[in-house]
Amino acid sequence: MIQFNITPLSTEKDQDLWNKINSKTKPIGSLGVLEEIAFKIGKIQQNLSPQIQNPTVVVFAGDHGIADDGVSFYPKSVSYQMLYNYMQGGAAINVFSRQHGIDFKVVDAGIDHDFAPNLNIINKKIAYGTKNYRFESAMTKEQYLKCISSGAEVVEEIHKNGCNFIAFGEKGIGNTSSASLILSLLGNIPLEECVGRGTGLDTNGVKSKFELLNEGLSKYKGSKNPMDVLSYFGGFEVVMTVGAILKAAELKMCMLIDGFIITSALLAASKINSKVLEYCLFGHKSNEKAHVKMLKQLGGKPILDIGMCLGEATGAMVCYPIIKSAVSFINDMASFENAGVSESKESHTI
Amino acid sequence: MIQFNITPLSTEKDQDLWNKINSKTKPIGSLGVLEEIAFKIGKIQQNLSPQIQNPTVVVFAGDHGIADDGVSFYPKSVSYQMLYNYMQGGAAINVFSRQHGIDFKVVDAGIDHDFAPNLNIINKKIAYGTKNYRFESAMTKEQYLKCISSGAEVVEEIHKNGCNFIAFGEKGIGNTSSASLILSLLGNIPLEECVGRGTGLDTNGVKSKFELLNEGLSKYKGSKNPMDVLSYFGGFEVVMTVGAILKAAELKMCMLIDGFIITSALLAASKINSKVLEYCLFGHKSNEKAHVKMLKQLGGKPILDIGMCLGEATGAMVCYPIIKSAVSFINDMASFENAGVSESKESHTI
Repeated sequence: MIQFNITPLSTEKDQDLWNKINSKTKPIGSLGVLEEIAFKIGKIQQNLSPQIQNPTVVVFAGDHGIADDGVSFYPKSVSYQMLYNYMQGGAAINVFSRQHGIDFKVVDAGIDHDFAPNLNIINKKIAYGTKNYRFESAMTKEQYLKCISSGAEVVEEIHKNGCNFIAFGEKGIGNTSSASLILSLLGNIPLEECVGRGTGLDTNGVKSKFELLNEGLSKYKGSKNPMDVLSYFGGFEVVMTVGAILKAAELKMCMLIDGFIITSALLAASKINSKVLEYCLFGHKSNEKAHVKMLKQLGGKPILDIGMCLGEATGAMVCYPIIKSAVSFINDMASFENAGVSESKESHTI
Repeated sequence: MIQFNITPLSTEKDQDLWNKINSKTKPIGSLGVLEEIAFKIGKIQQNLSPQIQNPTVVVFAGDHGIADDGVSFYPKSVSYQMLYNYMQGGAAINVFSRQHGIDFKVVDAGIDHDFAPNLNIINKKIAYGTKNYRFESAMTKEQYLKCISSGAEVVEEIHKNGCNFIAFGEKGIGNTSSASLILSLLGNIPLEECVGRGTGLDTNGVKSKFELLNEGLSKYKGSKNPMDVLSYFGGFEVVMTVGAILKAAELKMCMLIDGFIITSALLAASKINSKVLEYCLFGHKSNEKAHVKMLKQLGGKPILDIGMCLGEATGAMVCYPIIKSAVSFINDMASFENAGVSESKESHTI
C-alpha cells in the first residue's frame, strides 16, 4: 500500500494572519467567510501573503457496472459522450473553468470506451467500467491500489507544473450510487438516508435505486475499512480521487472540494488520514440530499448553497472567484494605518 | 416630483428561455440558482443570448447627523477618509471591482468634507451631512427631490456609456440606523427588531442605538409615505440610491442589490413603484440581522449567504462572478443535440 506523509498545519502564523486580516479598512469580521478562507489559505501556505498559483481542476471519469441496472436517469453511454463534449469545450465545467482562467484536465479512470490517443485525455484507464456490485466486488484490490497510485501520479504531475491550488470533479453515470454506499458504510448512516435523486430521479426512481443498492449492500461481507468499502462499491474515478486527495495533502496543496461524489472520496480519504481535511475548502452544498450529512461528518462548511448538483467540479468552479476574492483582499486591501482611516472607538458600547 | 416610466417585463420569451436552459448538456435543473439568474437576465433583456455590457458599481456616500450621537462603532470622519481610500484603490470595493473588471464610481451625495475637484468623485453633494433626526427632519422635501433626481442623473449618464448591468453600494457612518428606521416604518416591523450591530456594536451598543433611534421615531409625526419617511430619516446616499434604482428600472437595466442599506433603498423604491423588483437580483444576505426581514418583504432570494456586512456593494461584487457564470452557461454550453450526448430516458422512474 502506497504511503502518504501528511503533516498537520503549523499554528505558528495564526495570530499574525488574524492581525493582518483585522488591520484592513473594514469593520472586524465584516468579510465573513472570506476572512476564514484567507486565514485558511495563509495557514496552508504558511504565508501572510498567500497566492494561488496555476490553479487546476481535474475531472476523473469512470463507468459503473451498476449503471446497466438503470440506477441513473441517463444511459451509461453519456459518460463517454460527455468526455467528447469536454474535448469540444461545450460542457459546464469548460465554460466555468474558462471563465476563471483555470487549467482543466480530464482523466480516463475507467470509461467504457476507447478514446483516440491524440485526444487531450490523461489515460489512467483501469478497465472498461467497474463490475456490478449487486453481484460482485466492483474492482479487485489490485485495481483499487492502482487507482490510488494513479490519482497520486496525476496530482504529482500537476504539482510539478507549479500548481498549489487544485479542485477535483468527476464524471460517471451511476456514481451517486457509489457515493451513497460509501456514506452509508463509512459514515454509519442507514442507506435509505443516503440515496437521493442523482441526475433527476423522481420518488419512484429513488425507491428503485435504493432497492438495487440495498441488494448490493446486503450481500457485502467486507469490513468498514475504507479499502474494503471502496473496492467493493467504488467507482474507479472515486478511488482515483481518494489517491489524488491524499497526494495533494502530502504536497500541501489547497484543495477545493466539490459536491456529493467528491465529498464521498474525501470522507474515505479522511478515514485513511484525517489530516487531509486541514487542506480542504468546501465549494458548495449540493442539492443531492445526503451531501449535507457528509459535510456534517467532515465538519465541512460549504461556501455556496445555490441548489447545484451537476458534478464535474462545477460547484467548486462557480465558487472559485470567491476564494480568489479572499486571497485578493488579504493581499491588496489597505490597512487603517496605511490609508489614514480612523480605527473604531475604544469600547464596543456607545 | 420626477416621474419614472417603468414597464413590467414581458413573458413572451419565458418558454424559449427555459427551453434553451433545459437543452444544455446537464441534468434538468442541476445548475440551480444559476438557471434562475440566466432566465431573469434573459427576461429583462428579452434576449435568449443575454449579455452583460459595461458592468458598473456605484457607491453613493453621505454623512448622517445622528452619527454625532455615536450610533456607530466608528467616528463620522471615517466616511470621508474612506473616500480617499477609494481614490487610492485600497478599499474592499476597489479590490473586488478590480478583480472582476467592473467600472467603479463614487458619488458624494453629502459627505461632511470638501474634496478637491480633481478627484474622481462625482459631485452631487446636497449638504455637509443630514440633520440629526433625533431633533428634526434629516432633510427638507426639496433636498429629498434633489436626491432622487441626482441619483437618476448618475444612472442615466452610466447607461449612456453602454452599461446594462449596475450594482449599488453606499458609504456613510450611521446609515444602518436610517435603514432600520426605513424598514420599521415602511415594513411595519417594530423598531427593536430592525436594529442591529452595524459595524460591530455589542449588545449594550445595540441597546443604546435602539434607544437613540426610538427617540427620533417617537417624535416623528409624518406619514408612512416613502417620501415622508425617507426625508425624515434617510441619508442623502440612501435617497439618491432610491432615485438610481427607479431610473435603472426605467432604463431596463439589470440591478444587483447589495446588503442592508441598499435593500432599504429598494424597499422604499418598491413602495413608489413595485415594478422595480422585476429588474433586481439579490447579491447576498447580510450579517446585519434585520436584512433577512427586508428580503422577505421583497420576495428577494439572496444568492450568497457568507456572513458579510461591510457595505460599499462588496456583497454584490463578491457575488458578481456567479451572475457572470449564469450568463456564460446560457450562451456557451453545448446542447444535447449539438454535442451528440444522449438525453435522459423517457420516464423519470427506472
